[in-house]
Amino acid sequence: MKAEIITTGDEILLGQIVDTNSAWMAQALLSLQIQIAQITSISDREEHILEALSNATQRADLIICTGGLGPTKDDITKLTAAKFFQTSLVRNEGVLTHVRGIFEKFNRTMPDINLGQADVLSNGEVLFNDWGTAPGIWVAHEGKVYVFLPGVPFEMKNLMSHRVLPKLQEFNSQEKIAIRYILTVGIGESHLAEQIADIEDAFPPHIHLAYLPKIGLVRLRISASGSDMVQLEEELDHYAKLLINRVGDAVVAHDDISFEEAIVRSFVESKETLATAESCTGGNVAKQITEIAGASAMFQGGIVAYANQAKEHLLHVEHSVLAQYGAVSEETVIQMARGAQKQLGASYAIATSGIAGPGGGTEEKPVGTVWVAIAGKTEVKTKLFQFHQDRILNIERTTAQSLLMLWNLFQKEKGI
Amino acid sequence: MKAEIITTGDEILLGQIVDTNSAWMAQALLSLQIQIAQITSISDREEHILEALSNATQRADLIICTGGLGPTKDDITKLTAAKFFQTSLVRNEGVLTHVRGIFEKFNRTMPDINLGQADVLSNGEVLFNDWGTAPGIWVAHEGKVYVFLPGVPFEMKNLMSHRVLPKLQEFNSQEKIAIRYILTVGIGESHLAEQIADIEDAFPPHIHLAYLPKIGLVRLRISASGSDMVQLEEELDHYAKLLINRVGDAVVAHDDISFEEAIVRSFVESKETLATAESCTGGNVAKQITEIAGASAMFQGGIVAYANQAKEHLLHVEHSVLAQYGAVSEETVIQMARGAQKQLGASYAIATSGIAGPGGGTEEKPVGTVWVAIAGKTEVKTKLFQFHQDRILNIERTTAQSLLMLWNLFQKEKGI
Repeated sequence: MKAEIITTGDEILLGQIVDTNSAWMAQALLSLQIQIAQITSISDREEHILEALSNATQRADLIICTGGLGPTKDDITKLTAAKFFQTSLVRNEGVLTHVRGIFEKFNRTMPDINLGQADVLSNGEVLFNDWGTAPGIWVAHEGKVYVFLPGVPFEMKNLMSHRVLPKLQEFNSQEKIAIRYILTVGIGESHLAEQIADIEDAFPPHIHLAYLPKIGLVRLRISASGSDMVQLEEELDHYAKLLINRVGDAVVAHDDISFEEAIVRSFVESKETLATAESCTGGNVAKQITEIAGASAMFQGGIVAYANQAKEHLLHVEHSVLAQYGAVSEETVIQMARGAQKQLGASYAIATSGIAGPGGGTEEKPVGTVWVAIAGKTEVKTKLFQFHQDRILNIERTTAQSLLMLWNLFQKEKGI
Repeated sequence: MKAEIITTGDEILLGQIVDTNSAWMAQALLSLQIQIAQITSISDREEHILEALSNATQRADLIICTGGLGPTKDDITKLTAAKFFQTSLVRNEGVLTHVRGIFEKFNRTMPDINLGQADVLSNGEVLFNDWGTAPGIWVAHEGKVYVFLPGVPFEMKNLMSHRVLPKLQEFNSQEKIAIRYILTVGIGESHLAEQIADIEDAFPPHIHLAYLPKIGLVRLRISASGSDMVQLEEELDHYAKLLINRVGDAVVAHDDISFEEAIVRSFVESKETLATAESCTGGNVAKQITEIAGASAMFQGGIVAYANQAKEHLLHVEHSVLAQYGAVSEETVIQMARGAQKQLGASYAIATSGIAGPGGGTEEKPVGTVWVAIAGKTEVKTKLFQFHQDRILNIERTTAQSLLMLWNLFQKEKGI
């Protein structure tokens, strides 16, 4: 079964929001062996929606369309879908009662504008929305399935999980796809490709290798498609093993987890703990770690020491060090890392200090100058980076590099 | 001028990465009055790329295609584009020297696999890539412009900023678009729509109002299209003023800034300062604030107090309070907020404590239970939230709600 996602709404085309829904839906559908053939983002204008629905019908068996189900005048998906199916909208009393109930719960009267949210396609089945006012709609039409969902991520996710996926499980895909991931660290994409070229060259045509590089990391994805899932899994096991043996120590994880999750898991297993002392990353390192479920078993806490006062008072960086070398210096990050380690009682600590920009640069220390220190059990590693002008990128790169440095020191000190 | 973005790569269709490039490109193109007609994400297979290029040619004047320019076997965009244009690839010596140079800089030999990165379309112009190994390519073909760029965000952004946008400025779009934003807080989308219905109804057909809701916020976007930019701007000024007057105090900002940026600006103007004490949000509140350029003028710092030890030691939460009421309690968040305010010397402080999940819930305090406290100049406001099961969503919702509470207390105490 092939699926296509259509997202409607000018806000994506104008770059006002990043489309995070599609990636989530793709992962959810993949769990049912349903592959996405295309993701299309279009404006919320009638002719675009009609064209996209019509094109998707040519390519896919399942068309999921998000957005444009709200109560306001720019929400035209249902009306347009009615035109597409040459059908009409009918008011659903169950939905109306539900929408009224939501407003009553907050002691508010339902505005008349919300009446339209209870109108659904007469050829469709209501996907009841317990998480908001806009119902989803499921339409089976000429051998294809069309699903209309609200674009609000929270509502879309709940409707997918509780309404759409259970219905989709009834469909049994003929084309199966099996996937393995190998997360590697510290080898560039090209060198990794050279290192494993002969293994890749020997892949049969139904097995495909992809390189997904990020800062300092390359994730390998091996996918196999065919009809016999057991055979596909066995083939993937075989090829994954060949790759893992070849790449050796650079393999961080054998499954589809993030680098942060690999760090959290390894620290928990080794009973090590982590603390952070962040200046230029402003809490982003702590945030990346604490997003991982189970982080509380290894993350003690962190200090976002933005002002110098915080560096002195909470991290016990010496006043004289700040005065002599400045906040962005090797001497300061070392004391920050040691301070976090001690104040938070952790075996490892990450410290970052730099000039994220756009302001604050000097000739000697231009925007993008960043010091990172990792305090471990036996030593403190430091590194100076010279990044570029973009504040957000500087924060992201510093975060990624500091996690790489942490991993390397953790590996080096393993067993100590 | 209408543009279309095509992103290639199975990683987007498999939900492995979120496509952040497209939003960035859309914003960049909008600055040149170029509107995106469609964003299409496809696999890196030849037939899909050919079909997408061909369809985009029907809809748009400018087609930007990202991804698939790397050195590995899954990178087939250039070969496929050569087929599409019925042309060939030629090796570019300038690019080859550059790619070799990058490897030499790191004292490595260039793998042979990278030779292909110096191959460019013979009907195209090289967009020299100073930020990586894959060059961009600009092709003018039968009245349309095609741009091929690497998918790595950092390289794509630099190539767009330094190579593509300057060339695009030569094109002068006939269809102009003017845009205004109004950021409102604390009114639901439906009620806001009712409140301004008569103003919206009186909009002429070339002026369009969109509602962009987020947790607790609604951003209004008024866009006008036509040929006379001066007239469009005047019309928008007129309608924006009507809306702003009607919505009154709920208007947070008149321009296209995030809520976080509005907070940072207002705090800097009022000479107020902020500190954070985060448990369940794990640094995310501090991260959201410190991503804003200029945050250092108002953000003193934060403490990510994950372990109870950190709450006691760094925030001076009383041991007896933690023992009696638990970490997730009104009593504890109040002491966390006051502690952060005092320890970091700030006029305002945000404190969060909750059970983000998936583990850690109890019958009395299930996953999703969150306390937030805001310490201000005269009082501490607290609020209990009952969110759901999703860890990331719980972190995001707590962050958003804590910033809303901060804004409300800040507004209330203004002038004190």
